[in-house]
Amino acid sequence: MKPLGPIPAGFVAADGELIIGGRKASDLVAEAGRTPLFVYSADRIAARVADLRKALPDAVALNYAVKANPFGPVLQAMAGLVDGFDIASAGELAMVTEAGIDPARISFAGPGKRDAELEAAIAAGVTLNLESEGEATRALEVAARIGLTPQLAVRVNPDFDLKGSGMKMGGGAKPFGVDAERVPALVRKLIAAGADWRGFHIFAGSQALDAAAIAETQAQTIALAARLAAEAGASPPKVNLGGGFGIPYFPGDAPLDLGAVGQALARQLARLPGELAGTRFCLELGRYLVGESGVYLTRVVDRKVSHGEVYLITDGGLHHQLAASGNFGTVVRRNYPVAIATRFGQPATEEANVVGCLCTPLDRLADKGGFPRADVGDLVAVFCAGAYGASASPAMFLGQGPAAEMMA
Amino acid sequence: MKPLGPIPAGFVAADGELIIGGRKASDLVAEAGRTPLFVYSADRIAARVADLRKALPDAVALNYAVKANPFGPVLQAMAGLVDGFDIASAGELAMVTEAGIDPARISFAGPGKRDAELEAAIAAGVTLNLESEGEATRALEVAARIGLTPQLAVRVNPDFDLKGSGMKMGGGAKPFGVDAERVPALVRKLIAAGADWRGFHIFAGSQALDAAAIAETQAQTIALAARLAAEAGASPPKVNLGGGFGIPYFPGDAPLDLGAVGQALARQLARLPGELAGTRFCLELGRYLVGESGVYLTRVVDRKVSHGEVYLITDGGLHHQLAASGNFGTVVRRNYPVAIATRFGQPATEEANVVGCLCTPLDRLADKGGFPRADVGDLVAVFCAGAYGASASPAMFLGQGPAAEMMA
Repeated sequence: MKPLGPIPAGFVAADGELIIGGRKASDLVAEAGRTPLFVYSADRIAARVADLRKALPDAVALNYAVKANPFGPVLQAMAGLVDGFDIASAGELAMVTEAGIDPARISFAGPGKRDAELEAAIAAGVTLNLESEGEATRALEVAARIGLTPQLAVRVNPDFDLKGSGMKMGGGAKPFGVDAERVPALVRKLIAAGADWRGFHIFAGSQALDAAAIAETQAQTIALAARLAAEAGASPPKVNLGGGFGIPYFPGDAPLDLGAVGQALARQLARLPGELAGTRFCLELGRYLVGESGVYLTRVVDRKVSHGEVYLITDGGLHHQLAASGNFGTVVRRNYPVAIATRFGQPATEEANVVGCLCTPLDRLADKGGFPRADVGDLVAVFCAGAYGASASPAMFLGQGPAAEMMA
Repeated sequence: MKPLGPIPAGFVAADGELIIGGRKASDLVAEAGRTPLFVYSADRIAARVADLRKALPDAVALNYAVKANPFGPVLQAMAGLVDGFDIASAGELAMVTEAGIDPARISFAGPGKRDAELEAAIAAGVTLNLESEGEATRALEVAARIGLTPQLAVRVNPDFDLKGSGMKMGGGAKPFGVDAERVPALVRKLIAAGADWRGFHIFAGSQALDAAAIAETQAQTIALAARLAAEAGASPPKVNLGGGFGIPYFPGDAPLDLGAVGQALARQLARLPGELAGTRFCLELGRYLVGESGVYLTRVVDRKVSHGEVYLITDGGLHHQLAASGNFGTVVRRNYPVAIATRFGQPATEEANVVGCLCTPLDRLADKGGFPRADVGDLVAVFCAGAYGASASPAMFLGQGPAAEMMA
């Protein structure tokens, strides 16, 4: 038997069923009308934001990285909870504005912005995080052509990375941002060109569970911003400190010590260098805000035995849960937290593989996990499904199509 | 510098540009109206089928595995080229029938068929490849309810795998098919229940480049089918021998020796055991039929240097080319065949990374490859993009949306 990832704290059963947002899994499926179904708990999202507000210094703003989950009702819930929104494409710009969010709250990062995307962002009053000198030139040209003053920040490729992060986005050659040593010259150029210079965006990594590593990276980020500001001869109105706050997915993972991160950041902000005295800091979080709020529910359509191994074959799979299947950014496949939603809390009595309906051996949601006995019709829950699930999976593979999504 | 995968034979330049289906890359993009763009060459697909017909024994039928590429015009082209179509969902059934293909030519495999999918298939006259005893029971119940005689084949989980295959689908416990030792009893049950028993489906692996390994697997498959037929006391009308024919993606890969596969299969069919004397054999190929016909064209939107490394940042990426980015079924990332389409055939003069527009370090299409110098506006070609590209990638990630697709 192989271990399963840790189920996020607070999920309980009623009448033997998993409860999400106060409602039974089977009732949620009945309301949606079908499986597979992503359910996102509005209460869990609000509680997570409240935990962050409590742990972090008041002066730190909180941004939502839309890429983690662009579902409309999630964006609408976030509108009243966070300060800013970070987008990565004109497609995400459309989603955020459709959710009724003021473009003045939005910033746009991403290494491959097309001219049409630059124009849409400038026209809407979105802040652009510039990823290169070439992009800066194009943004200034677009702004001049449409007669608007662009709001431009510079994304910095830092000369350090976030230790222990799942994805490193700094330290050495990278497609993201401008190498730190070239940033001061670019800032001076933007200011000289009459742009509204908004500051720095510095993102060193993601999905870290080590508070000390995050605190060290934040200290390095603040020091780098101060150094770049001094060299540029201009104080940044804003500094986006990046994110990197991870959630536990796998056996042995422990939750991030949020209090320790907040205390370290408070100490940093209490001794800011003069260049940053008037700077507004923000954190950009996606996965940490929504990841644990989401549960993916899929129905068992077959139960079979092959060479003594039990297979629970579901109507879901990697076309909605690419990362849970171990095929997205992971080298060694490990189990996500998975449970039988319609027998939640019952003891494990057998070893079973939970697989998807796709005709490929890659489509496995749990490998040799311990579960109560499940049969055709039971619902399987994959936890930590709120971020990088529905939108980060190949929904059209094998003609399957997207899952249903709902808030609870 | 790291090597790039081998460009399929026959791609040439005219006026310094890659030619696909007799037309320049930039002309194809102009017709499509945008990038990124998948172009599939009808001539290359037809030539590949002709090569197969020449190499394989006349008695062997050729099926197309729709999951490799379900683009409507590809299905329409296949309708006049191959004998049968293998689908994996009701979604694919709808695509194939919309392409005007007779359902009598279709068979349906896949471990997680819902009742509604079984009903749609039986009602249309599609052959079901049954994946378990439970699915067999459900199919018989559905057929009885709607008053039709179901066409049922049994998918066998073979007790061997395809050596050297990219994905093993036999040998030990698997979610696919019925363990060989339980197949004869199931066949007898189907026949006794009045079903139209169509034979066996035996798929041992995919993406193999070793002709000897494929020949050995085909011999084992035929021997297994004969043994199961003898034990069941019934000769199979059809045997689907599976596929497994690979294409070269990576540096050092050599094309499959199709002649050797065909000759070995001819020898096998010349000495068939009596149980299979009246059996019609077919091969189920997807990737081998369409993979090398396709080219993914994406435009360079930024050229930048970070710590001395050149980055060509494109408007495409892993949201259309998940496998090329190294994030789908591969443990070690290697480069696909990639070239600058608008400078095709020119010598490599620099080392560059080709990355996508997504804000994640996973989005890399070529790592430290050798290319002629390319600038903003140039087109990049990713070859071997005809199979498991558009439909097997997370098109909605970061709000990007699907690529354009066209036949040339």
